[in-house]
Amino acid sequence: MADPVWVELGDRRYPVFQEAGGADAVAAHVDGNARPGRLLVLSDSNVGPRHASTLAASLRERGRIVRALEVPAGEDSKSVGVIGRLWTEALAGDFDRGDTVVAVGGGVVGDLGGFLASTLMRGVDVVQVPTTVLAMADAAIGGKTGINLARGKNLVGTFHQPRAVVQWVGSLGSLPERERRSGVAEVVKSMLLAGEDDFAWLEEHGSALSAGEPAALSESVRRSAALKADIVSRDEREGGARKLLNLGHTLGHVIEQATGYGSWTHGEAVAAGIVLEMRLGIDRGIGDVGLLARVRSALIGQKLPVEPPSLRVDDWTGPLRVDKKRRGDDIEFVLCEGPGRCRIVPISLVTAVAWLKTL
Amino acid sequence: MADPVWVELGDRRYPVFQEAGGADAVAAHVDGNARPGRLLVLSDSNVGPRHASTLAASLRERGRIVRALEVPAGEDSKSVGVIGRLWTEALAGDFDRGDTVVAVGGGVVGDLGGFLASTLMRGVDVVQVPTTVLAMADAAIGGKTGINLARGKNLVGTFHQPRAVVQWVGSLGSLPERERRSGVAEVVKSMLLAGEDDFAWLEEHGSALSAGEPAALSESVRRSAALKADIVSRDEREGGARKLLNLGHTLGHVIEQATGYGSWTHGEAVAAGIVLEMRLGIDRGIGDVGLLARVRSALIGQKLPVEPPSLRVDDWTGPLRVDKKRRGDDIEFVLCEGPGRCRIVPISLVTAVAWLKTL
Repeated sequence: MADPVWVELGDRRYPVFQEAGGADAVAAHVDGNARPGRLLVLSDSNVGPRHASTLAASLRERGRIVRALEVPAGEDSKSVGVIGRLWTEALAGDFDRGDTVVAVGGGVVGDLGGFLASTLMRGVDVVQVPTTVLAMADAAIGGKTGINLARGKNLVGTFHQPRAVVQWVGSLGSLPERERRSGVAEVVKSMLLAGEDDFAWLEEHGSALSAGEPAALSESVRRSAALKADIVSRDEREGGARKLLNLGHTLGHVIEQATGYGSWTHGEAVAAGIVLEMRLGIDRGIGDVGLLARVRSALIGQKLPVEPPSLRVDDWTGPLRVDKKRRGDDIEFVLCEGPGRCRIVPISLVTAVAWLKTL
Repeated sequence: MADPVWVELGDRRYPVFQEAGGADAVAAHVDGNARPGRLLVLSDSNVGPRHASTLAASLRERGRIVRALEVPAGEDSKSVGVIGRLWTEALAGDFDRGDTVVAVGGGVVGDLGGFLASTLMRGVDVVQVPTTVLAMADAAIGGKTGINLARGKNLVGTFHQPRAVVQWVGSLGSLPERERRSGVAEVVKSMLLAGEDDFAWLEEHGSALSAGEPAALSESVRRSAALKADIVSRDEREGGARKLLNLGHTLGHVIEQATGYGSWTHGEAVAAGIVLEMRLGIDRGIGDVGLLARVRSALIGQKLPVEPPSLRVDDWTGPLRVDKKRRGDDIEFVLCEGPGRCRIVPISLVTAVAWLKTL
């Protein structure tokens, strides 16, 4: 087994393991990294029956006291109502400060499980067990947690680093193709941020990734985890470098929100968002059409969208006004000169909206 | 004006000011310590009309953009329903990561405002402006936030240090007598933890405190803040020394919960809890009746209860089982040999319940 990637945060440093095996092998990582105590396994109605229940059984075989909670699959579970129910249910059994939440699933379960852990009794441990490409490449690493409000995604949340992350790549065979491709959008983002070597690797292995070949998928989320670990180690609270990870997300979030969360997946919205933000950059003299062509080609190779949906100006404006990345009148965009050469560029809300009107 | 007390937490160190003046003077502290940006002033239906509205007006005169939110007065506002409403309302106006929540009121508003700030957009600043003795002496300092579930108090919450605390002692004249006396219960706890000098000061100024004399009240919350700042500076996350602040609270919380929150105030429950925990200690060979007599006398001098209500055994057992201070089968009690000589003593749930049955 390969060495884990480490997120270096002093005495809160934690490993990101990759596990190609089944529930028993994953249980060994969880058991070995969670403190002694009870485990609260959180999953959703897709991942629960397929993977979380067998993981819970394996953990019980190792002598752990395990309780399993399940939320409905889908972004709607990142709600005030669901977190209220989870708070009550989590504490309905015996649960104390030394116990651990184990979040098994995609970004929704990871965000929800992280938020649950960060707020139960002023903070308990969480171990993240991502089962989607998106969560392995990005969401499960770095401690961002959150729930959605009607006004926007992740407007409520915390920073709460996990105790360990286990990329359960052995579960990816059951991931629906569309979800897998959506997750690869975050891989494209990560490789563009990482540098020429990683981006070239992506271009070389695009076909294998698109075909869902396990070795390529595993390597892609390992490289993405390495980038994310490096960035989070340098900037835990998104004061600087970490903002780079928002590449494609500023406009991607608007697309998700304006289309009502669901008709576009997060990854599809990010794919279109990356292209759109690069075009905005080029129009302001940052980046060039050659790089744009490479990125478009990589995304198209994954059958990901590279054009935004047709939106009214108000659809863009409303969400941008409450974007967490807003500081006063400016929106912080991530613009790229080349692979590994991206930076934060503040653009006023007025300017951004005027540009979006020209689309 | 006296120098502030400082809570020493490295680059997150913050001052605890004391302000005997009116809204203008408090506004100067808030304005001088909050980052540039909008202010969200949170208060309750008691403190809002009396103090928070004039503070908001003073802040606007200083050029701040201020929005005011109010919750119903009372512990019931520390609920999932209210925090859900506050999340939505806080973000209904313009609000971004650089803005600040200003919590003006007692422990309920401080806990709720702190939790709101810690979870809005993964954390914004909060300035605490306590207007009760309890909040000045204890709750507003140290970053504990929380809401209640049916199963117990503060079972959901975070650690989120404020940017500054302003003890608005100038507002204490309008505090109802029962609330003032309840707050002094926390002062008694603090002086017992602090040492012989502080406890002797309390005994000497007991009559003045009981009469509500402003100078004595101000000095009592300054001394309490100094103790709390010292403890929090050494142990932010309650891994060790900070647990001492739970003196009287383990059984006090049970009294509050068993009597349905409201018939006993928090401070009254803590007063009875301190005495009860000291008796438990004496029966286990820790502390003596001389110290117990001094503490009882100090509490009686403040017209605070020193006997618990009549409870059934189940009333004690249920809440203790979900107590946040529980670690596995043990409950961590704070027992005292003398002023300044208190320590954590784990007692098994079974033993504690057996002792409570003998009451």
